[in-house]
Amino acid sequence: MRDVVIIGIGQTPVGEHWEKSLRHLAHDAIMAAMGDAGIETADALYVGNMLSGQLAGQEHLGALIADFIGLRGIEAMKVEAACTSGAAALRVGLMAVASGMQDVVLVCGVEKMTDALSDEVTSGLATAADQEYEVSQGISFVGLNALLMRRYMYEYGVTKEQFAPFTVNAHRNGVNNPYAMFRSPVSESAYARAGMIADPINLLDSSPVCDGAACVVLAPASKYRAKAKAQILASAVATDSLAVHDRRDPMTMDAVMLSSQKAYAEARLTPADIHLFEVHDAFSIMAALSLEAAGFAPRGRAVDMARAGEIAIGGRLPVATMGGLKARGHPVGATGVYQIIEVVQQLTGQAGKNQVVGATIGMAQNIGGSGATVITHILGTV
Amino acid sequence: MRDVVIIGIGQTPVGEHWEKSLRHLAHDAIMAAMGDAGIETADALYVGNMLSGQLAGQEHLGALIADFIGLRGIEAMKVEAACTSGAAALRVGLMAVASGMQDVVLVCGVEKMTDALSDEVTSGLATAADQEYEVSQGISFVGLNALLMRRYMYEYGVTKEQFAPFTVNAHRNGVNNPYAMFRSPVSESAYARAGMIADPINLLDSSPVCDGAACVVLAPASKYRAKAKAQILASAVATDSLAVHDRRDPMTMDAVMLSSQKAYAEARLTPADIHLFEVHDAFSIMAALSLEAAGFAPRGRAVDMARAGEIAIGGRLPVATMGGLKARGHPVGATGVYQIIEVVQQLTGQAGKNQVVGATIGMAQNIGGSGATVITHILGTV
Repeated sequence: MRDVVIIGIGQTPVGEHWEKSLRHLAHDAIMAAMGDAGIETADALYVGNMLSGQLAGQEHLGALIADFIGLRGIEAMKVEAACTSGAAALRVGLMAVASGMQDVVLVCGVEKMTDALSDEVTSGLATAADQEYEVSQGISFVGLNALLMRRYMYEYGVTKEQFAPFTVNAHRNGVNNPYAMFRSPVSESAYARAGMIADPINLLDSSPVCDGAACVVLAPASKYRAKAKAQILASAVATDSLAVHDRRDPMTMDAVMLSSQKAYAEARLTPADIHLFEVHDAFSIMAALSLEAAGFAPRGRAVDMARAGEIAIGGRLPVATMGGLKARGHPVGATGVYQIIEVVQQLTGQAGKNQVVGATIGMAQNIGGSGATVITHILGTV
Repeated sequence: MRDVVIIGIGQTPVGEHWEKSLRHLAHDAIMAAMGDAGIETADALYVGNMLSGQLAGQEHLGALIADFIGLRGIEAMKVEAACTSGAAALRVGLMAVASGMQDVVLVCGVEKMTDALSDEVTSGLATAADQEYEVSQGISFVGLNALLMRRYMYEYGVTKEQFAPFTVNAHRNGVNNPYAMFRSPVSESAYARAGMIADPINLLDSSPVCDGAACVVLAPASKYRAKAKAQILASAVATDSLAVHDRRDPMTMDAVMLSSQKAYAEARLTPADIHLFEVHDAFSIMAALSLEAAGFAPRGRAVDMARAGEIAIGGRLPVATMGGLKARGHPVGATGVYQIIEVVQQLTGQAGKNQVVGATIGMAQNIGGSGATVITHILGTV
């Protein structure tokens, strides 16, 4: 098995791209990544996307995008695992290079959500949950997360206001990220006043519906050490039941725990060794449950960790350092690749005002559904 | 890179499974394959599926099926490349084992098409074509293939009746396959009388809308040689433009040519070394164009090859030996895995009345869209 490095990164701003089709967004991110890597061709393309079939009537994105970027002929396919499609595509790219079956590989996460009607998007996102046992009862994806948040508040005697620091932190970091969708700070009082979506989840607990594309270029360390920006130290996937009611314990994200532990073991690290954590904060409750299951906070205490400032840049474990899903945005199938890019930016000292000083090891965790697929990557400096 | 062998195969009959959901079909195929392999667990599951998000409102099939088969926790994800999703999932499984990242891997292709209305299925299949440049003009997937068939007839001075041997051969072979959807022979006169769908494509030129699931178990040769049924000698993906009007030459399937040549090179073989060929005969014209681009017949002469009986069992190159897409059926995301199973059956002498005597090398080729993604696998006896 070959060691794999990242030799290029590229992204589009996250937002509402009315003037661009999905293939254009992917093109822009891939061209930026290839330019960054200083390459003019590649051996394969793995696309992370969840909703194009449902929202745009377009499947078969692998060949479509390979052709559109001028690389007609190369291996290409799409990988899907709900909101963790981006990290899943990265994992497939990693396997392609690690196995020696391909050398230079493009991994592109892309999603275009804003062209569709909002009820189409809500229905589309719900396909990440169990259609036969959850969605058929009428519950939406936000609704499922609202049940989890309410349970958390009940179990641990936590108030809704205690979740505010996750939002405040993400927006504070988004201000300095030119690719973030929301670049304004949010105060605790603004959080308290935000409109309710699915009680207790309000607008500022939620990541936005948006468009975006992100691309990383992978290559074998043996041949590309001179171009390497970061090395992939660990990659781990774990799953759980889609249906939340089937979980062993809804307050413990088993797949986060399993995926994190596998990743720590593979990288021979512990949670204390991680310098920054790109957390999957699709909703505030997801950030809290993830921090706990990944071993960064005891059960029910992630809110205290956030309140104490430990998740801020300069704190014990900076999270969402470029704005997270909440402020950078969450174009679902692209998010996992955005997270990887942000870790690379930190490890190469390119995070600007949000730089985590001295960061040499970063972790990105992408979550599909309300915890049914969890993919963790740990990257290190080269 | 580790050599990879197939240690188990399992399939459901192809047909209309009104009584079973997609997850049940996948379960049945996977349990059969695990039983065949004599294993009780696995490290990962890669699912090939194209239409579940659109037709069943269910994405996120990796975790869903992993949980449903009792393997909650393992790595799982879906791979999509239109009608070649099954072979794409096989390729990802191959990369997982070849890289050493996983040992025992399940590859399951599954599709459930008959629960949906026929116009939903037509729209779903059209997502394999270019939505912005082809489908938006109103053309269906059958329509695109009809244009190709008419062009072939014009270019080479061939009549529609000359395509009959492909259908006759497939149905003759389907008779003896207990998993085939259609098990009745079809005569040339029945072909000539078949109802027109999209002129010149008639009902008997076309593969059916159907349900089915198929699974193979992969493992490293080094550890599982005793259980090995067949070895994967080559795996190759190539792509072309989705839109047929963008092709270099619509009568030459460039991606078939490129994918086949890569596979021959990897296996150090030539077309003359292939003992049987599971061709992607979604429509008769696809079979003809594939045989030509893969190097088995000169341009415009595949119809003569079929007429001469060379594609029959006992002929120079038996194709569709268990009925092909036309008679076994074409549950789109599952087809690529059915093809692999059928090659394994031939290589292990388990093809019953359809046995190709002395077969030691077989090729399976799965095609997405009207030739935009082509994945070729060559298997050999162990």
